[in-house]
Amino acid sequence: MDGLGDYFPFWNALTKAQRDRLAAAARERGYSKGAMLHRGGADCLGLLVVLSGRLRAYVISEEGRELTLYRLLERDVCLLSAACMLRGLRFDVMVSAEADSRVLHIPAEVFREVMEESAPVANYVNALIAERFSDVMWLMDQVLNKKLDARLAAVLLEERALQGSGQLSLTHEQLGGHLGSPREVVTRMLRYFQEEGLVELGRGRLRILDLPGLEALAEGSLR
Amino acid sequence: MDGLGDYFPFWNALTKAQRDRLAAAARERGYSKGAMLHRGGADCLGLLVVLSGRLRAYVISEEGRELTLYRLLERDVCLLSAACMLRGLRFDVMVSAEADSRVLHIPAEVFREVMEESAPVANYVNALIAERFSDVMWLMDQVLNKKLDARLAAVLLEERALQGSGQLSLTHEQLGGHLGSPREVVTRMLRYFQEEGLVELGRGRLRILDLPGLEALAEGSLR
Repeated sequence: MDGLGDYFPFWNALTKAQRDRLAAAARERGYSKGAMLHRGGADCLGLLVVLSGRLRAYVISEEGRELTLYRLLERDVCLLSAACMLRGLRFDVMVSAEADSRVLHIPAEVFREVMEESAPVANYVNALIAERFSDVMWLMDQVLNKKLDARLAAVLLEERALQGSGQLSLTHEQLGGHLGSPREVVTRMLRYFQEEGLVELGRGRLRILDLPGLEALAEGSLR
Repeated sequence: MDGLGDYFPFWNALTKAQRDRLAAAARERGYSKGAMLHRGGADCLGLLVVLSGRLRAYVISEEGRELTLYRLLERDVCLLSAACMLRGLRFDVMVSAEADSRVLHIPAEVFREVMEESAPVANYVNALIAERFSDVMWLMDQVLNKKLDARLAAVLLEERALQGSGQLSLTHEQLGGHLGSPREVVTRMLRYFQEEGLVELGRGRLRILDLPGLEALAEGSLR
């Protein structure tokens, strides 16, 4: 497959043999909305580059509650779907397609081989892990230090940006999955938001009525 | 400085020039209990190997509340004190000496130079970041999915292991710093533990009375 150089900043630092190995192994794949791409450490699909669509990385608690760690948009690289090639990684992340998506796939064993000989590739992976680690540290700060109302408001604003509309199609269950909170807790808070005139609730959808109000809530509501 | 090979698994994969560069820059340093080694991204001390003693890595919330991320014991390597050499890292970690400690210090710029040319060093750093990332993911799961009583019990058991005694010298403030909770909340829970016969409280110290009881609480108390 051609054109990998557009996605990987280390491309010109590779030998011809390394470039050929990656290009020969790379495949384009399509996933329908809702498809699971990766289920924790046992899977080791490989490195994924999002060509179009959107992926969601999340963890699941012992009781089955989800918490969204981050989203991967166009040109983002999903590293944790190649967790087996990262020594020291001891947690399970799920990756699913949140919209119909096309991804570029490089099998873990091929990428690992190149990473083990090439300092630029290994340093690129370093920066990727550091970025995801930073995402999670931000989330940890939110979870510990922000109240649920502020976090829910922030998630609604993020969904608005992702869906490109103030008319959101998503369930309370899904919102709970983003926040790591039980559905009932989310429903209670959404009803409060509705009473406050911030949103209007419908079945499987939700309309944002007071954008500045949600923004203020997301920003200012530190405990 | 000699003997670096004992601490770094990549040592034999380096060129002589690289080994000499690291050895010439490495210094042994001592820190007294309570000393700050690193204060977030602005500092960039470098890579630290714990020779003896104990370091604590933690974050601070906007309101000044601490949360312990992990401890570094003998032979552990502290990477986040060289945060400036990690592209993509966007969070501030504090590192302090939790006991009188001796560390081996390699300045960030020297280590970075070697890391940028050497795939084995870059891959070693990969594994280190992945490990710390995993520690934080475990902590996130605790914070989200375990109740404070179970987390406090777990922290007391960890302190018992670190201090090598059931007679712990530590304040409620320090416990709050490990848990990311306000001191008053910790004090309330400790009084409850005392009423239950699990611990006995004193000024700046605490004695574990019922070890199996604390263990059961730490294990079983999932929400």
